[in-house]
Amino acid sequence: MSQVENSNSYPTSARNQVKRRHDRGFYDHATVHRILDSSMLCHVSYVIDGQPYCTPTFFWREGTKLYWHGSSASRMLRNQTRGERVCLTVAHLDSLVLARCGFNHSADYRAVMAFGTAYLVTDPEEKERAVIAMVDRFFPGRTASLRQSTAQETKATSFIAMEIEEASAKIRAKGVADDDQDYELPIYAERIPVRTVLGAPEPCPRLLDGVSRPAGLNGYSEGRLLDDALRDAYFVEYPNG
Amino acid sequence: MSQVENSNSYPTSARNQVKRRHDRGFYDHATVHRILDSSMLCHVSYVIDGQPYCTPTFFWREGTKLYWHGSSASRMLRNQTRGERVCLTVAHLDSLVLARCGFNHSADYRAVMAFGTAYLVTDPEEKERAVIAMVDRFFPGRTASLRQSTAQETKATSFIAMEIEEASAKIRAKGVADDDQDYELPIYAERIPVRTVLGAPEPCPRLLDGVSRPAGLNGYSEGRLLDDALRDAYFVEYPNG
Repeated sequence: MSQVENSNSYPTSARNQVKRRHDRGFYDHATVHRILDSSMLCHVSYVIDGQPYCTPTFFWREGTKLYWHGSSASRMLRNQTRGERVCLTVAHLDSLVLARCGFNHSADYRAVMAFGTAYLVTDPEEKERAVIAMVDRFFPGRTASLRQSTAQETKATSFIAMEIEEASAKIRAKGVADDDQDYELPIYAERIPVRTVLGAPEPCPRLLDGVSRPAGLNGYSEGRLLDDALRDAYFVEYPNG
Repeated sequence: MSQVENSNSYPTSARNQVKRRHDRGFYDHATVHRILDSSMLCHVSYVIDGQPYCTPTFFWREGTKLYWHGSSASRMLRNQTRGERVCLTVAHLDSLVLARCGFNHSADYRAVMAFGTAYLVTDPEEKERAVIAMVDRFFPGRTASLRQSTAQETKATSFIAMEIEEASAKIRAKGVADDDQDYELPIYAERIPVRTVLGAPEPCPRLLDGVSRPAGLNGYSEGRLLDDALRDAYFVEYPNG
């Protein structure tokens, strides 16, 4: 995980350079993509008439492009069809850190901020690929088993894409880190791990007789980390990363 | 959970009115605050020179005000001291929903978008309260057991506050919801619950002999939902909501 800028790293600028704690900053594709691919949920920021909006939504990556979707009626998407600057952020909370003084209370986390100009996917081939990827990226091969999308459904849904122009990852993974002299104090300190895990799958109560869970969903099993399930699914669908 | 606007609800405007799926929108304090108080992590959006930024950070609520903090050197905070418009968003992912067609694939979630004008906390009394709340809101009473903050630490940290001018909550909690005729198809569908849980606390390896875990941390026990631990802590610290 090098901070050196090269063909496998995102360029840095005033925008994405990690300012504080720059030892926590990474720009290489491997680190940035790993954090992105471990998440289904992102937050997209955009501006309308000077007012920032921060919308949680689902997204996926294809190479150095990010995709997200929604109804054509959505305010966010309406705005972004004009080619708006956006910032798409993913954050994983990995622990709560209780230190020996207030200011060293912290958390372990992995986060990515990705910057670019969003555009509406209008190319029919790219849109067709997005219709499949929005399902298969998370559940590889699933689209083939589903009722086919109607022309109306496809028409009613917009996909937004963004080439990642700049991105940075920020990682803290060190638990308690107190000032040297504070370790001599009789104060309790700990790290509390936080994990996002899958519960037992709940089959739809209206399944027809004889319809059972496809083997392709085995990666989504009770107790698994959501991160791991999502990242494994990504590599099944996009074996070349 | 009424959508009627009253003294216990946030006002609605073009900004916060839930546009799509407005049956999922709520504006009452109880619903909005419950979602906020179940989280430590938020995403704050702000604008610098027309470029939106989306920064993950920790936050807490006091009445209808939200607080967050960081080093005085942080770009975000430097910008927001001028009284910037911001949008602070919290989102909880509660399940993945696999339907019988691609477009009904979804997720259960709880999210809040809160709008306001951020200001730098400069009033000494408000800042002193924030220094305590940034720890005690999550770990009630803990500040009293810690090494006291130095004047330098307090000076080096900025707190940002925002009165919530408008807010909306959006909740989906219904699992699989297919088109009527699709229930007759022999296609597998399910809801996969997602839970963010606490792991076993990891005491700092450098604890002095005889220093044990304070009873006040009992709410943060292995296997508990992070949501529940955070909300319980909130009500210990702010019994009146």
